Amino acid sequence: MPQDVTFDLPFDTPVSDHLEYARARHLRWIWDMGLVRSQAGFEEYRSWDLPQAAARTYPHASAADMVVLMNWFSLAFLFDDQFDASRPDRADRILDVARELIVTPLRPAGSRPRVVCPITVAWAQVWDHLSDGMSLTWRTRFAASWGRFLVAHCEEVDLAARGIAGTLDLDEYTEFRRRTVGIHHSIDAGERSRGFEVPAQVQAHPLMERMRDLAADTIGFMNDIHSFERERRRGDGHNLIAVLHRDRALPWEAAAEEAYRMTNARLTEYLDLESQVPQMCDELTLNEDERHRVQQGVEAIQHWINGNYEWALVSGRYTAAKEGPAVKGSVDDLLAV
Amino acid sequence: MPQDVTFDLPFDTPVSDHLEYARARHLRWIWDMGLVRSQAGFEEYRSWDLPQAAARTYPHASAADMVVLMNWFSLAFLFDDQFDASRPDRADRILDVARELIVTPLRPAGSRPRVVCPITVAWAQVWDHLSDGMSLTWRTRFAASWGRFLVAHCEEVDLAARGIAGTLDLDEYTEFRRRTVGIHHSIDAGERSRGFEVPAQVQAHPLMERMRDLAADTIGFMNDIHSFERERRRGDGHNLIAVLHRDRALPWEAAAEEAYRMTNARLTEYLDLESQVPQMCDELTLNEDERHRVQQGVEAIQHWINGNYEWALVSGRYTAAKEGPAVKGSVDDLLAV
Repeated sequence: MPQDVTFDLPFDTPVSDHLEYARARHLRWIWDMGLVRSQAGFEEYRSWDLPQAAARTYPHASAADMVVLMNWFSLAFLFDDQFDASRPDRADRILDVARELIVTPLRPAGSRPRVVCPITVAWAQVWDHLSDGMSLTWRTRFAASWGRFLVAHCEEVDLAARGIAGTLDLDEYTEFRRRTVGIHHSIDAGERSRGFEVPAQVQAHPLMERMRDLAADTIGFMNDIHSFERERRRGDGHNLIAVLHRDRALPWEAAAEEAYRMTNARLTEYLDLESQVPQMCDELTLNEDERHRVQQGVEAIQHWINGNYEWALVSGRYTAAKEGPAVKGSVDDLLAV
Repeated sequence: MPQDVTFDLPFDTPVSDHLEYARARHLRWIWDMGLVRSQAGFEEYRSWDLPQAAARTYPHASAADMVVLMNWFSLAFLFDDQFDASRPDRADRILDVARELIVTPLRPAGSRPRVVCPITVAWAQVWDHLSDGMSLTWRTRFAASWGRFLVAHCEEVDLAARGIAGTLDLDEYTEFRRRTVGIHHSIDAGERSRGFEVPAQVQAHPLMERMRDLAADTIGFMNDIHSFERERRRGDGHNLIAVLHRDRALPWEAAAEEAYRMTNARLTEYLDLESQVPQMCDELTLNEDERHRVQQGVEAIQHWINGNYEWALVSGRYTAAKEGPAVKGSVDDLLAV
């Protein structure tokens, strides 16, 4: 059921012209980098259609950058699947790799990873390209956004490994979800994809901070709704519908409805704040160029909310009826050397 | 010889009134936290007089904050000494602990460390206090500054463990030294100590970025000069004088003179840029309050250059003639649980 749930989003966002060009190069790359190691892993990965997600969330990227953005998506999503609840002993290795991923953007460009596996080698290569030409301020912001996301992912793995994934109450879960969804760094990457930077004082303004958080909530909740079947299949208790069912004692149908209502409430609050952006620009006495970059920053958020949504409706990642090794965890082990 | 070397610094910076109050509480704390575990370790630690360094570099901190800043210094300096070239097997444990220290500021306030030892437990406690009341933008900047420093420290440990510490040429070393000296996050902490924040657009300005780098170079080079005897005693090849001796084939005396000249050149360039700060404020059309915070930000840099210098001249950490366990590495093992 939940992958069919539709939302009424007031954004009309473009799709990159480079989708097919970049997809072909990207699919070669994941084999070359050892990110897929079997035909079954490749078929499962291809069914997710991450290239479409990248082409929708970063529609203005150049052809060469689009390949790298797809490459980045692949390693992030594939890493996300490396934990398998039936193998709690993998938690320490996942944490080791996550810390390496956190540290990479803090190293000088061109450094080699210290913890070596397909995921870390791929990320070091992607980061060299992704950080190229960006300011220290942007690199600092991206590194912290990315690091906070990976730290939250480690917490999630730890909870699952200890068998207590389903113990967060609704407030704890929504706070947690904002960190695990990984939207802050995804929006940051929007600047790189279009070759601009949001002015530092805007990024530091409470309005922009709150807009980013609300975008993360909206996308995280939508994702929970669309991936509900996949996560139930995988025994993953970190899903808004499951938390509402358990913590608020709601029947499944009512829990799904409440999740839908909560998602729309976050979206409405986001849209309300978005309408206050011109006042913020006045308050900060921004010039024309700075206002233009703020507008592009807002569009980067819209591209993510809408692009992720459009992709999730059709991605094979969230298909309800599924068989095979991907039902439980990842198909290929990507943490071994 | 080198600890006697004096510089002519054009700053006259204050010393905190809370030195003695905070020192007493701090010295109790390091025992309570297990950061010293023996009388010998305590005597060695006390001889460094880090409380004086904190009182000089953060002269405007409240009494309670001064204790925490001293606590922070202790764990950072004691961690720095945990590598012992005669025990290369310790490198992996040091890296494990360093990654935990990097991750701490990326976690929600009040989180427990996942890698547990006296250093990480102490840092989690210090960070909760140090981050209190600071903006997301500041926490992001601090986390990245701190992370880059610890990453560089790990590289240093790796080089030493592989026996190739003395292989960097002068250019490589000066780039490396800027990262290992740990000044960027130390200056960031100046804002917390005085309860202000440098405006985000100033922090992102190339002039301020360059001033911070030059302050790091100046302090790093001064520190290399003052700690030369200590580091030669410990077999540490990462010292500007040693690099000049080796890479430029200079006799020791000439290498020390060249290091002195290089230090003054960085300081001169820093001072030149400092004089351009008012123009930067005009260019960014800052208001009075913002200009005041920029001025405090510049003073935070001055407090570090001058305060660290005044302390280094008298600290027992850099005493040339020394015997006992501190000659080789740390006195106490602080990485075990």
